Order: sequence, then structure tokens, then C-alpha cells
Amino acid sequence: MYQADYLQSFVKNVFQKIGCPPQEALLASEVLISADLRGVDSHGIARLAGYVRLYDNGRLNPTPQVRVVYETLSTATVDGDRGLGLVVAPQAMRIAMEKAAKVGSGWVSVRNSNHFGIAGYHAMMALEKDMIGWTMTNAAPLVTPTFSLDKLLGTNPLAVAVPTRNEPPFVADFASTAVAYGKFEILQRQGLPAPLGWAQDAEGNPTDDSNAVKSGGGLLPLGSDREHGSHKGYGLGAIVDIFSGVLSGANYGPWVPPFATAGFMAAQAGVGLGTGHFLGAMCVDGFRPVEEFKDNMDRWIGAFRKARAVEGKQVIIPGDPEREAEVIRRQEGIPLLEPVVQSLVELAQRFELEFTVK
Amino acid sequence: MYQADYLQSFVKNVFQKIGCPPQEALLASEVLISADLRGVDSHGIARLAGYVRLYDNGRLNPTPQVRVVYETLSTATVDGDRGLGLVVAPQAMRIAMEKAAKVGSGWVSVRNSNHFGIAGYHAMMALEKDMIGWTMTNAAPLVTPTFSLDKLLGTNPLAVAVPTRNEPPFVADFASTAVAYGKFEILQRQGLPAPLGWAQDAEGNPTDDSNAVKSGGGLLPLGSDREHGSHKGYGLGAIVDIFSGVLSGANYGPWVPPFATAGFMAAQAGVGLGTGHFLGAMCVDGFRPVEEFKDNMDRWIGAFRKARAVEGKQVIIPGDPEREAEVIRRQEGIPLLEPVVQSLVELAQRFELEFTVK
Repeated sequence: MYQADYLQSFVKNVFQKIGCPPQEALLASEVLISADLRGVDSHGIARLAGYVRLYDNGRLNPTPQVRVVYETLSTATVDGDRGLGLVVAPQAMRIAMEKAAKVGSGWVSVRNSNHFGIAGYHAMMALEKDMIGWTMTNAAPLVTPTFSLDKLLGTNPLAVAVPTRNEPPFVADFASTAVAYGKFEILQRQGLPAPLGWAQDAEGNPTDDSNAVKSGGGLLPLGSDREHGSHKGYGLGAIVDIFSGVLSGANYGPWVPPFATAGFMAAQAGVGLGTGHFLGAMCVDGFRPVEEFKDNMDRWIGAFRKARAVEGKQVIIPGDPEREAEVIRRQEGIPLLEPVVQSLVELAQRFELEFTVK
Repeated sequence: MYQADYLQSFVKNVFQKIGCPPQEALLASEVLISADLRGVDSHGIARLAGYVRLYDNGRLNPTPQVRVVYETLSTATVDGDRGLGLVVAPQAMRIAMEKAAKVGSGWVSVRNSNHFGIAGYHAMMALEKDMIGWTMTNAAPLVTPTFSLDKLLGTNPLAVAVPTRNEPPFVADFASTAVAYGKFEILQRQGLPAPLGWAQDAEGNPTDDSNAVKSGGGLLPLGSDREHGSHKGYGLGAIVDIFSGVLSGANYGPWVPPFATAGFMAAQAGVGLGTGHFLGAMCVDGFRPVEEFKDNMDRWIGAFRKARAVEGKQVIIPGDPEREAEVIRRQEGIPLLEPVVQSLVELAQRFELEFTVK
């Protein structure tokens, strides 16, 4: 087990070594480790070596000049100048929140960015101001839309954070696919098959091959097949892609560049700049007095908590599992898989940093 | 087959007979028949008798004073004064579009309304102004969240309409469940079972009983079960409910009143006013020059149209099936099922209107 502070400090040092200014390296490390703390291991320190590889490939600018390229009182497009998505997205969210404070809501599309960590982190920034936060991002194409043999969409997540009174905040944060790709990587390491409904093979047939996406197959949209509504998961992923990519001037659809992990095709010639995000903030009191809203959110959550559940299960409020993971991991530490530890040891050697394997 | 104009005229007359002013009756009839034209039979004239029953039950005000009760430059809450959702929602969308024209985006939550017809109609209103339209609504609880035995959410749809250049607009319009309830009604009439993954029984087990929802079971969220991501469909339905109900001061969760169709529980004591909606409009040029955006939307759609497809199928662009249905039905007419025709004959008798059975 590794303490969050220890890992965060290491991450910050690595980002500084590739040239990020101290304040930005600090923010990026906080966003990245928040994923590990919240139990979303696939989006945390496991990706640190990938960000460094982005830098090595010339696709990451450690000292970006993030700037607004279009705006109205409630909207803007931000160019991330090839900066770390971990830094660009919070800056864009701050702009959205400033607009919301002035005119009730703020909506910012982002181009020329890259992977921004967990969507929920950025949406949750809005909570401190009694705002509802929205986050979307597109991602490299791994997903076959309903009836498609070609991979045209990323796992394109959506996160929404809603303030509450005594209950913890409502935080929904989910990919628009049946499962995230990380679930396949776990099965691949264990040599296990995947449940039907997660992926299709190269001919579009249902498959339990956990390596299907590497051999011409694709991830399935939420809903899995047409009969169970996969066209809706496809529609949701498409909305995320259009808001993140087409609205901002980033790449979209099959043109979204891959994150710097090995194993997938190189980016095709682009139709825009980098990866795209979409972030928004809405003031609760633009709609209803804040205290009235929060009382009703607590009542909403209470009704769901009190629901009768299937034997041995309980009805989960979006955000509960991640919050509970954070309580445990802040106390007991963060478990890291052997390949992740190995990647950190290599980074430590390369950058002449200390990293103590536990 | 019935011509759309003929049906719309009949609908308008019925709404006038229950006291709606001519202009509002006309708008309501246009919204209702647009569902029949677009092939969404469950949300069209089949519901006309239900709206009249709402009126008979004292739940529908034919002459509502729709008013803004809170607002900022980019947000508002509208009280629908128990008016027809078919009329309240377009009025709220106009307010959202006026705000968007001034400050880049406009977002309106609506309380004290009822069923608003097809979500896509209202979202598509934004297209004429080169805006992206958003629509959500909550609905009476038929859906069991993941692991729940209680029905706590409606089928809570989301619609997003996006302008294009030469391609027809992108219009995604879908419920946050595996299937809409109308699919079960079709199977019930035919005495057929439902595919597994659409509903659960009273103990939370998978069932193929197409009557399950009537005997203690529930509709399943998009994703069908936990392993295939039903917590994501539940999260999406929850977001729609919170934006439509909690933000506006309408009812939410288990408290949303049923539409006036028979067969489901009466509304519990409420936590707000009527049914809630959420409508939004964003100016494309608040983010990027309109022509540039439209060119890229056409390119997005082109990439999806050109995708290799499963044998005998094609990749469908959201909005295509409804648009194609409209072309055919404007020409050939609208087919009506016998029970729907019967309901119209009864309305004609009651209100001394003419209705010719074809």
C-alpha cells in the first residue's frame, strides 16, 4: 500500500522533470491521484508513464498558454495549447464557473488537449460554489456503434455533480459503453474471457474474447446490442463526441488521437486539434433558492437509499462507491499492481527521483 | 391510413373543446401529431384520450398562465400552471432560445407541467436559429434502479438536436431505459414474452413476462443489469430526474404523477408541482463559427455513414429513422391501431366532432 501524499509528491516531481511549472505539476498530480483515491485505478498513477510518453512523442506541451478563442457571456471555447488535460480541464472549468457566477451558467468546449484524468474531478469543482458541474470528453476510437464494424467512438464519459445538504453530493461519472476498457485489461492479465455483451469480434458477432478489441473487434456501447438499446449508448457517446470535439474544433469520431499507451493504431490525419472536452457549471440559484434545492436533493437521495433492494444488495447513490473508496484509501493507502510499480521505478531511474517499492 | 392534416385538425378541435385557446390547441396538435409522423406512435394521437382524462381529473388547466418564477441571464425556472406539456414545453424552449440569442446559451427548468409529447420536437426548435437544442423530462416511476425492488424513476428521456449543413440534422432522442414502455404494450396485446434484459419481476429476477411491470416488477435501466452497466442507465435517468424535477420544484423520483393512462398507481402525496422538464439551447457561434461547425458536423455524419456495417445492416445516424418515417407518413398517411381509432371515435361522440374511420 502506498500513501496518497507519497504518490502525489512523486507524480508532481515527474511532471516538473518534464518541464511543467510547479503549480501546474501540483494540480496535475492532485487530479491524477484523485482517481487512485476514488478507486478508478485505470485513470490514476497507472497512466503516469503514458503522459511522459506523450511528452516524449512531442504531443505534450509542458508550458501551455491556455487561452479563450471564442466566447459569449455564458459560453467559450478554450485552446489547451497541447497542455496536460489534467491542467487544461480544471482551468476551463474555472472559466465556466466564472461565467456561471455572472450570468447563471457557463459552458466551455476545449480543443487541443489530451487525457484529462477522471471526469468526476472536474465536475465536482462546481460543488464548492453551489453549482451543478458537467464534464464530458471524447477519446480514441475503441467503440463500434450499433451495427458498425469500424471503431468510431471513444468510451466518451459523462460526469455530473450535484450539491446536497447533509447527504454527500450526487456524482454520476460513467463511460457511454457497457464497460470501460480497463475491465478488459484486467481480464487479459488473468487470461480470462469477458461476459458476452461487452465486445464484438471483427465480424460484428458477440464474443467473450477479452482480446477482441486488439484483433479487429470493438467495445460495445451501453446497451450492448440493438435489442437492449445499444443505439442509445451510441447516441450518448455521439453527443459527448459532438460537444467535446466538433463544437470545440478538436478531433472527433475516428480521428481522436490515441492516448500514449501502446497497442492501438496511430492517429489518422486529424480534422482538428488534439482531444476535446466539454465542461459546464450551472448555478442552482439560477433556478431555485439553494437551500430549497439542497433539501430536495437530500430527500431525493433518501428515497433511493430507503428503497427495498435485491437480497444481499443495496441501491447505490451515484458517487457513493468512489467516496467510500476514498475514505478507505486515505487511511489504508493505495494498492498498486506490479506493472504499475515497475513503470514508476523506471520513471524514478530516468528522472533520478526516489521511489520506494513497498 | 389517416392523413396527418386530418388527424391534427381533429386533435386541435378536441383541445379547443376542453377549453384551450385556438393558438395553443393548434400548437399542441402539431406537437402531438409530430410524434405520429416521426413513427413514435406511443407518444402521438394514441395519448389524446389520456390528455382529456387529465382534464377530466382536474389535473389539466386549459388556459394556463405560464410564467417565469426565477431567472438569470442564462437560466430560468418556468411554472407551467398545470397547462398541457405540449404547450408549456415549446414556450419554455422559446425562453431558452431568447436567452441563448442574448448570452450564448439558455437553460430552463419547468415545473407544474405534464406529458410534453416527444422530446425531440422541442430540441429541434433550436435548429432554426443555428442552436443546439436539449430536452429532458421526468415521468411516472416505472423503472427499478440497479438492485432496487422499488420503482423510483420514469423512462426519463433525453433529446439533443444539432444543426448540420447538407446532411439532415443530428437528432438523438431516447429513453434512459433498455426499452420504452410502449414496447411492452405491443407484446401484451400479442400475448408474447419480452426479451430478457427489459424488465425484472417483483423479486428482482430477470423475467420475460411482458406484464411484469403490472405485477410488482419494473423496467430496467439502459444496460439491463449491473454487469452490462445498468448503473449507468440508472445514473442517466437520475440526472434527467434531478434536472427536470429537483431543479424546477416539480415532483421527482417516486413522486412523479402518472400520466392519465389507466393501470398504474395513483400519485403519492407530492414533493413539488406536477411533472418537470429541462430545456436548453446553445448558440453554435458561442463556440465556433457556424459554417465551420456545420462543415464538421457533415464530416462527422459522413464518417459514420461510410462505416463498414454488419451484413444486411447499416450504421444509423441518430434522427434518420424518424425523418424517414416522416417522409413516408406525410405521403402515405399514418396507420392507427384499432383501440386508438376507437378512442378517437369516442372523443368525437363526446365532443360532437366528426371523425371518419378509414
